[in-house]
Amino acid sequence: MNTGTALHGVNRRIVLQARPTGTPVPADFLLQEVPIPRPAEGQLLLKNLYLSLDPYMRGRMNEGPSYAPAVELGAVMVGGTVSEVIESRHPRFKPGDRVVTQGGWQTHTLSDGTGLGLLPADMTHISLALSLLGMPGFTAWYGLLRIGEPRPGDTVVVASATGTVGAVVGQLAKRKGSRAIGIAGGAEKCRIAVEELGFDACIDHRSPDFAGQLAAATPEGIDVYFENVGGAVFDAVLPRLNIGARVPLCGLIAQYNSKGLYPGPDRLPRVMGQLLARRIKIQGFIISDHYADDYANFMREMSPEVAHGHIRVRENVLQGLSQAPQGLIDLLDSRFTGKVVVQLTD
Amino acid sequence: MNTGTALHGVNRRIVLQARPTGTPVPADFLLQEVPIPRPAEGQLLLKNLYLSLDPYMRGRMNEGPSYAPAVELGAVMVGGTVSEVIESRHPRFKPGDRVVTQGGWQTHTLSDGTGLGLLPADMTHISLALSLLGMPGFTAWYGLLRIGEPRPGDTVVVASATGTVGAVVGQLAKRKGSRAIGIAGGAEKCRIAVEELGFDACIDHRSPDFAGQLAAATPEGIDVYFENVGGAVFDAVLPRLNIGARVPLCGLIAQYNSKGLYPGPDRLPRVMGQLLARRIKIQGFIISDHYADDYANFMREMSPEVAHGHIRVRENVLQGLSQAPQGLIDLLDSRFTGKVVVQLTD
Repeated sequence: MNTGTALHGVNRRIVLQARPTGTPVPADFLLQEVPIPRPAEGQLLLKNLYLSLDPYMRGRMNEGPSYAPAVELGAVMVGGTVSEVIESRHPRFKPGDRVVTQGGWQTHTLSDGTGLGLLPADMTHISLALSLLGMPGFTAWYGLLRIGEPRPGDTVVVASATGTVGAVVGQLAKRKGSRAIGIAGGAEKCRIAVEELGFDACIDHRSPDFAGQLAAATPEGIDVYFENVGGAVFDAVLPRLNIGARVPLCGLIAQYNSKGLYPGPDRLPRVMGQLLARRIKIQGFIISDHYADDYANFMREMSPEVAHGHIRVRENVLQGLSQAPQGLIDLLDSRFTGKVVVQLTD
Repeated sequence: MNTGTALHGVNRRIVLQARPTGTPVPADFLLQEVPIPRPAEGQLLLKNLYLSLDPYMRGRMNEGPSYAPAVELGAVMVGGTVSEVIESRHPRFKPGDRVVTQGGWQTHTLSDGTGLGLLPADMTHISLALSLLGMPGFTAWYGLLRIGEPRPGDTVVVASATGTVGAVVGQLAKRKGSRAIGIAGGAEKCRIAVEELGFDACIDHRSPDFAGQLAAATPEGIDVYFENVGGAVFDAVLPRLNIGARVPLCGLIAQYNSKGLYPGPDRLPRVMGQLLARRIKIQGFIISDHYADDYANFMREMSPEVAHGHIRVRENVLQGLSQAPQGLIDLLDSRFTGKVVVQLTD
């Protein structure tokens, strides 16, 4: 690698140019070229190899407050990366180390070492650190096992079944002896969920008879609903939830693009009534809370599952940073099947 | 006791005459006099001494389904009673035994022994088996400790602070080292909550500045909200809930009298967004699920607390079965401070 070029070259980055109202558009983003910064004592310089695109990014584009700070206008878009140390003035890292971090939408990132996760030197498929063995995989594992607590014979339902989180939820549920029912947009995604990912069934939420098909696929009701979409899917799931059902809540992608008040009727009283009548637990969680306590347990359990091919996901690799804005827009529009990463180097 | 009279006398009972729409009215109930039934082999006859009045009764007057079967039109209203065995053809019970059971709104009840809880022979204040040491006390104990999990220094909020459930929640929270903030209707109830029950503060939900006062009383936010009312109180509590807050949900009295669709805006998306952003747990529970597992633990912990006066509640004793309908109507209209029982005998 020609680090000399990198060190004296250009950092290409994408900043938030405007806050979207509703769906983001390309003009909300701006590609900039700035000098690559030099690390001071205690810092290191990262060359970002892969950038992860994820639904939560839409939330960060809104004005705060949310569970994480909003991206400021003019600031680099946030995002997880797999990165390589190319210059280090930090005692714990040396050039050539590969790490997973929040490098953002840019080719180079300066770091003080905080929050860097060192990847094993022999790891070959390093982009998996952004999917199965990274934040989305950990999200699925934590929410399903720590909050959903699926038992053998339970019925587990998850939407976005072909996305990384949904795919891992479904495959983990099967490994625990539960039935796994996926929800996805379109016949092709549903086919992949069943044939490639092993779901027992997958329902197309665009079908006019979606609620009826979901009911038919869950004849014994639903014990765990892993909520990562919100909206109409939740409405169809609610009447199917069994007594004692658990609803880990990690995302509401159907709401991210909405703004202001929602038209009536007010669904809250009915939902609360159902929570009471059927002793249902809904629990929100943010995976960044749980790295210290549970990430090592996750990796110990998941690494062999992934290595043996028991748990997998499709990976879409976009080429070049400039593809990131349209990639996120397409992702939010459900145009991908599987994980989406942007390869930042040739 | 003149058991001869009872055995050959009249069972006075109140049946559901009409399903209320909204608030119940006296004409929804009908007082009947029927012959006292005679126990067959394996049965026993109970003379009911005290009838408990509770908010959940309103829900049972609706057409099902709810978490418990609806009371059929023409059937005796359901209700917990402290009762005395006056004739027994059951091997486990003898005349003179006092039990807590679901005797219903009537002076005499035939039983096959199922679900009868024998009271200690030396228990003097037997009506407490319907409040502090019965279902409402167990509801408060289970929901607060098993779902709410209050820690020292936490802020615990409960509505209907002077009702049995609310009073026990507040006093138990204090015993666990938490701050206890009550919500009640009117200055007099709030005074009682603070002066008699030991709440750190109590907010009058009828005050025009209710939300502002609640915020002022919870400067460090709310860690546990014991939800037993729903409606506007929940709306004021929601923005005060801290990260990781727990919401045991055991009742929605503000909804019991409502029917049909609720006008917009739809509050559900905002609530779900808050659950996610602040990692909040809402969990419904029905106390009848937990007698087998936890009632003995409850009694072991609570009996000495009640005996020593550390946990208490006001008791309103109505005289005579005919007072029960208006008593329930008044209870649903928040006209009582404390527990409401009907004494069925002179």
